[in-house]
Amino acid sequence: MAKASPRKPKPLFDRVCFIGIGLIGSSLARAMRRAGLAGSYVACDRNPKHVKAAVKLGITDEATRDYAKAVTGADLIVIATPVGTNGEIARLIAPHLKKGAIVTDVGSVKRMVIDSVARHIPKDVHFVPAHPIAGTEHSGPEAGFPELFENRWCILTPPKRTSAKAVGKVAELWRRIGAKVETMDPDHHDKVLAITSHLPHLIAYTIVGTATDLSGDLKQEVIKYSASGFRDFTRIAASDPIMWRDVFLNNRDAVLEILQRFTEDLTAMQRAIRKGDGPMLEDHFTRTRAIRRSIIGAKQA
Amino acid sequence: MAKASPRKPKPLFDRVCFIGIGLIGSSLARAMRRAGLAGSYVACDRNPKHVKAAVKLGITDEATRDYAKAVTGADLIVIATPVGTNGEIARLIAPHLKKGAIVTDVGSVKRMVIDSVARHIPKDVHFVPAHPIAGTEHSGPEAGFPELFENRWCILTPPKRTSAKAVGKVAELWRRIGAKVETMDPDHHDKVLAITSHLPHLIAYTIVGTATDLSGDLKQEVIKYSASGFRDFTRIAASDPIMWRDVFLNNRDAVLEILQRFTEDLTAMQRAIRKGDGPMLEDHFTRTRAIRRSIIGAKQA
Repeated sequence: MAKASPRKPKPLFDRVCFIGIGLIGSSLARAMRRAGLAGSYVACDRNPKHVKAAVKLGITDEATRDYAKAVTGADLIVIATPVGTNGEIARLIAPHLKKGAIVTDVGSVKRMVIDSVARHIPKDVHFVPAHPIAGTEHSGPEAGFPELFENRWCILTPPKRTSAKAVGKVAELWRRIGAKVETMDPDHHDKVLAITSHLPHLIAYTIVGTATDLSGDLKQEVIKYSASGFRDFTRIAASDPIMWRDVFLNNRDAVLEILQRFTEDLTAMQRAIRKGDGPMLEDHFTRTRAIRRSIIGAKQA
Repeated sequence: MAKASPRKPKPLFDRVCFIGIGLIGSSLARAMRRAGLAGSYVACDRNPKHVKAAVKLGITDEATRDYAKAVTGADLIVIATPVGTNGEIARLIAPHLKKGAIVTDVGSVKRMVIDSVARHIPKDVHFVPAHPIAGTEHSGPEAGFPELFENRWCILTPPKRTSAKAVGKVAELWRRIGAKVETMDPDHHDKVLAITSHLPHLIAYTIVGTATDLSGDLKQEVIKYSASGFRDFTRIAASDPIMWRDVFLNNRDAVLEILQRFTEDLTAMQRAIRKGDGPMLEDHFTRTRAIRRSIIGAKQA
């Protein structure tokens, strides 16, 4: 009996356009290509170096700085630029979108992205907002790799009347490259991420900034002895400045709310240290261990 | 010509006593044993489980809860307990110390340890305070491993009239197990570590505490989506509660000073977010990347 040749899964899309081919865009392009999810790939980026790198590194088949040219004929458009630019990009590409195409994004903030993008999207095009919870402190097309999303969450926050078929197709895309998919209300997403991601980044940026302002000798020693805890913060605080500026400007209310709670808690710790309140400190430090155990239990560590 | 058999380096000590056989004590014992640095090893710990584990795991040759018995005959005594206990331990072991013995420690705070320990040490015994900058979020004798100190700094903060020979011997011990040794003024040490280690731990403990206080659903989602930045903080905030309580109680002034600066900087960030000051945020986030590069340049990343 002749052995059947292994069936190659059918591509999900004919032509995919990535607007922004940095860490996330280029990782997604690499992952999709490896999984055979589309017929062809085109990158569009304002940065001429990124355009050149996309083709040179074989991330996409074509690359251009021209939005109209890039999106023409594409049945999936992935906006992967800092969230502050998403509305303007939507406005620019809208007249050139193919009927029935799906526009998606990868932004860390969802309410503001939906509000600024959705109104530009033509009625015969589907908009499926998405946020893959993955990244590194590096940026640019060279920093991408196809395994970035494996076993990581991708949260979809489709507005109520979004086509279920379009949502299903985007979900399928993420699953095929190894991600786990969840659907969430955009406002709730922004609140959860303010705690798990935006506040930790803000704090890391702040403490590394505090160290940057130290005088020469002390600063050198902070670098030399960074392995004692500080180093972990510097990795987080090396993340892309423009991306993070836009996150804070576009998720202001949720970030300020959780920051207020954090500041109150920090003041309580400060008071405990000043007063020498050992039992309070010990009790607090013991409770935080339990959260770490939960994370290990949830296989997120 | 007969080949000379490889010369085994001469042990530095006859008998070493570890007071406290947790993560650091047991790692040091394992590393010293592997490097053949002493004739015999004894562990002393208040916790009967640790006493049992020390012998069962072959970390030391003997183990006891009796301080007098443990230090008798030892020419090196390593105090490796939370810093708040060091003064009392010094008082208890002092009458039983052998003439010419060296007492050292591994505490994360140096001024308070020196002040509380040195006055109990007999004139014919040497006290060489030390702080290996290494650790993990795990604790107990089972958590130790001999490679913990490889390529890590160990800072010695000997008071002015300490025997140079004794300091040299402790430095040699750390070098032989792979650490890099520096000497520093104790007050300066406490200031540097307040920035590189104590403040980062305090902040991580605080933010994880803030998350602990969230209501049920939100808390579960914070755990589920922790990979977005929060997770790094939970690892730090899982460190030993008693050890860290004692660090904050015993390095109060330096911690409160740097915490004050951090709070001012965080307030400035908060204001920038509230006012939508994009250029300030971008500028700050760009400067912090430079510190990360310095750390990579210093091979501490």
